[in-house]
Amino acid sequence: MTTLTPQPVSVRAEDIDRFTRSALTSEGIVPTQQVHAWFAERRRAATHVVRRVPFSALTTWQVDQDTGDIAHQSGKFFTIEGLRAVRADGQGWTQPVINQPEVGILGILAKEFDGVLHLLMQAKMEPGNINLVQLSPTVQATFSNYTQVHGGTRTRHLDHFRFPGGGTPLVDVLQSEQGAWFYRKRNRNMVVEADGEVEPHEDFCWLTLGQIRDLLRLPHVINMPARSVLGSIPYLATPRGGNGFRTSLGASLTPEDNGPRSLAELIGWLNDAKLTRGLDATLIRLNEVTGWHRTDDEISDDGGRHFSVIGVSVSASTREVTAWQQPMLAPRAPGLAAFVTRNVDGVLRILVRASAEAGLFDRVEIGPTVQCVPGNRDKAPESRPALLDYVRGPSARVRFDVVQSEEGGRFYQAQTRYLVVEAGDDLPAPPGDEFTWMTFGQLMAFQAFGGLINVQARTLITCLNALW
Amino acid sequence: MTTLTPQPVSVRAEDIDRFTRSALTSEGIVPTQQVHAWFAERRRAATHVVRRVPFSALTTWQVDQDTGDIAHQSGKFFTIEGLRAVRADGQGWTQPVINQPEVGILGILAKEFDGVLHLLMQAKMEPGNINLVQLSPTVQATFSNYTQVHGGTRTRHLDHFRFPGGGTPLVDVLQSEQGAWFYRKRNRNMVVEADGEVEPHEDFCWLTLGQIRDLLRLPHVINMPARSVLGSIPYLATPRGGNGFRTSLGASLTPEDNGPRSLAELIGWLNDAKLTRGLDATLIRLNEVTGWHRTDDEISDDGGRHFSVIGVSVSASTREVTAWQQPMLAPRAPGLAAFVTRNVDGVLRILVRASAEAGLFDRVEIGPTVQCVPGNRDKAPESRPALLDYVRGPSARVRFDVVQSEEGGRFYQAQTRYLVVEAGDDLPAPPGDEFTWMTFGQLMAFQAFGGLINVQARTLITCLNALW
Repeated sequence: MTTLTPQPVSVRAEDIDRFTRSALTSEGIVPTQQVHAWFAERRRAATHVVRRVPFSALTTWQVDQDTGDIAHQSGKFFTIEGLRAVRADGQGWTQPVINQPEVGILGILAKEFDGVLHLLMQAKMEPGNINLVQLSPTVQATFSNYTQVHGGTRTRHLDHFRFPGGGTPLVDVLQSEQGAWFYRKRNRNMVVEADGEVEPHEDFCWLTLGQIRDLLRLPHVINMPARSVLGSIPYLATPRGGNGFRTSLGASLTPEDNGPRSLAELIGWLNDAKLTRGLDATLIRLNEVTGWHRTDDEISDDGGRHFSVIGVSVSASTREVTAWQQPMLAPRAPGLAAFVTRNVDGVLRILVRASAEAGLFDRVEIGPTVQCVPGNRDKAPESRPALLDYVRGPSARVRFDVVQSEEGGRFYQAQTRYLVVEAGDDLPAPPGDEFTWMTFGQLMAFQAFGGLINVQARTLITCLNALW
Repeated sequence: MTTLTPQPVSVRAEDIDRFTRSALTSEGIVPTQQVHAWFAERRRAATHVVRRVPFSALTTWQVDQDTGDIAHQSGKFFTIEGLRAVRADGQGWTQPVINQPEVGILGILAKEFDGVLHLLMQAKMEPGNINLVQLSPTVQATFSNYTQVHGGTRTRHLDHFRFPGGGTPLVDVLQSEQGAWFYRKRNRNMVVEADGEVEPHEDFCWLTLGQIRDLLRLPHVINMPARSVLGSIPYLATPRGGNGFRTSLGASLTPEDNGPRSLAELIGWLNDAKLTRGLDATLIRLNEVTGWHRTDDEISDDGGRHFSVIGVSVSASTREVTAWQQPMLAPRAPGLAAFVTRNVDGVLRILVRASAEAGLFDRVEIGPTVQCVPGNRDKAPESRPALLDYVRGPSARVRFDVVQSEEGGRFYQAQTRYLVVEAGDDLPAPPGDEFTWMTFGQLMAFQAFGGLINVQARTLITCLNALW
């Protein structure tokens, strides 16, 4: 009979400290100027050409004669199916949706250099990205890759994310992705500290979180999976003087439950929204979707407001050899996601909204104050989302404003403008109980458990973390 | 344009304090002796007789000719269907399951008397309960009851749980129920502080949490829904001297992250279990279930190890009028659920297990160290669950030991022995990564979010809370 082996000591508080120190370090072992040169070179080296092609040209993908669903001939990757969404009042709609039931891993490797944590970012080409190459997590892998026995994989650095034997997990949460486009997709978001040496490779570069913070201010550099993982990293801002935005943001990022509503109340608020505002969603055949039309080039909503399913072909231009083909989801217009914030007695409050999305794993997650496709709504001003006009108006003080790409492996040139604004006394009351104020620390308490904050709000969290 | 209305001030820390004070108050406005007399009288007054009847005698329930599923003629309540469960290795099984997709509310009303919080408990008859009448939450209602417009309901006290207009929520979490018997059942567990007067009624009694703690030591008095809600109440134990079990339990019930693994690591551990140990579950027709046989009296597994689906008829004996009939799930033998704990340097650690249950909403929840039906396993000692022999053996110091009923509205005389033991140095190492140690405070951090701790572990939490 063996006795208990000792458990590792908790390093949590120390980890937060190390993440925070890295975020405040704006130069790393690779100087920022050199990072930009490396990234520009990687972009030039990617000679891929992405072309829209008709569905009939997607030779490895098949349309099921009975259902109309689009699937890869191997049965792997993902399928395009139909989704029926029904609100509590019984009204609803149908739409195409990406069904990718397999949980993937988004993993960033971390390592200390000169006593400061650096993260290993990958310059990665994805066909839907604006500019094609963006900085991604060290590893983006499917669960099949992940669980397959050692040696059989070709995903670089994946062994660091296999346990036991891998590194030390510092962050490990299950997070959702776009609930309007994916059916219940979830990824395991991880930051893992490497044990021992990490083999260098031209596609990878070690960056401090401070360097990454600066890159987040640039459009289309940090990809969506990377933002998702980065948004899960916990920090504690150093207190500073004054009563400005930065000071109030830092004071808001505290484990103290110092918001207008307690964390327990906020959990109750979210549960209430799940029960009263959630959508009942079921997969249906793509053929059963109504209000959408299908040609050999695309499947689109008749109103032209939402998105098209299209086919793309990816080739290496120098050789004119097709690398692969796949269906993608192409939104009709750029989206907008905004946090409205407000400094109340020196503590910044964030106005969030309970976002009911048909494809979410559990009906409702905490989302941005405003999340919409503004182009679709301008024609009908009365149907504009609450506070859309406010966040774009003159009295909202803009604290962060950047356009980013969404997941370039599934979405074709999907862009979202991410906006953090600070409101003054003229902020109109947000209508209804779907909105609530919380502190940044409370938002991060939800974030720590995973599956409670939607992917757009997680990008906005990375914006907030670039501001203290 | 209106401006923002002020938000209510957080009362969270104060609430924990009030719950704790109530737990330490062993006499309430109704003296304990009088509570026992009232409860005995309520048990006597319930003259119901519950009889097993063949399915053909369930006149308001119908067996679908095609599927074999059992459903109420109104389409309401719940159905008995089939479930297919598949493990990661591709192996699996089929079984009958209760499908009750509608979220219910389990609500306890709270109110201060003489400055101490009291909870309003209901003496409620349920056909599956041992002794029929047990103490239940103030309200057990379906979501249909809950959302229906004011005035239309006959569920007493339900208006206190409707918002706005109801009382002040102190606890509000979505929790699962038995994942081996229910398909994705969830209930909203609430404690709500009443605004204003609460109408008295002979079935209801105000008790302090101290009085309830004492009643939890008795078998079959506090019903499962009540234990589920009670297990969600947060406390902070008062520090005490010495190095005994009570002291170490109190020191463990702290928001400080003072366990052998950090909360972030534990979240990662649970996610890992969801991905690697979770079961893929799908509803199938009851007719498709294999390894089970069906007579007019019951549907049972051929091995006689699991449970039967039976029919029961409930009548008021004095009048011989049938009140209602329904199918129920009758387990073959009593279950056992145990926490193994250990005092390490004055802080009690709890050994929990990642419990994969086919019917859980999200695959795996934190469960007891041991959770099984011992009777089924004794024949094959090598297949006994890890630590079952230990918790029943001579070197485990028993800290709590009580037999309780499971949900008497769905389960027929389902009993579980709940056991908290303190281990010494001779504790064998639990095999595998499905076990981990955590503090009581960490367990309660998971508990606060809901849906992360299974119903058996939640009853064990109420046992632990009767011990500091």
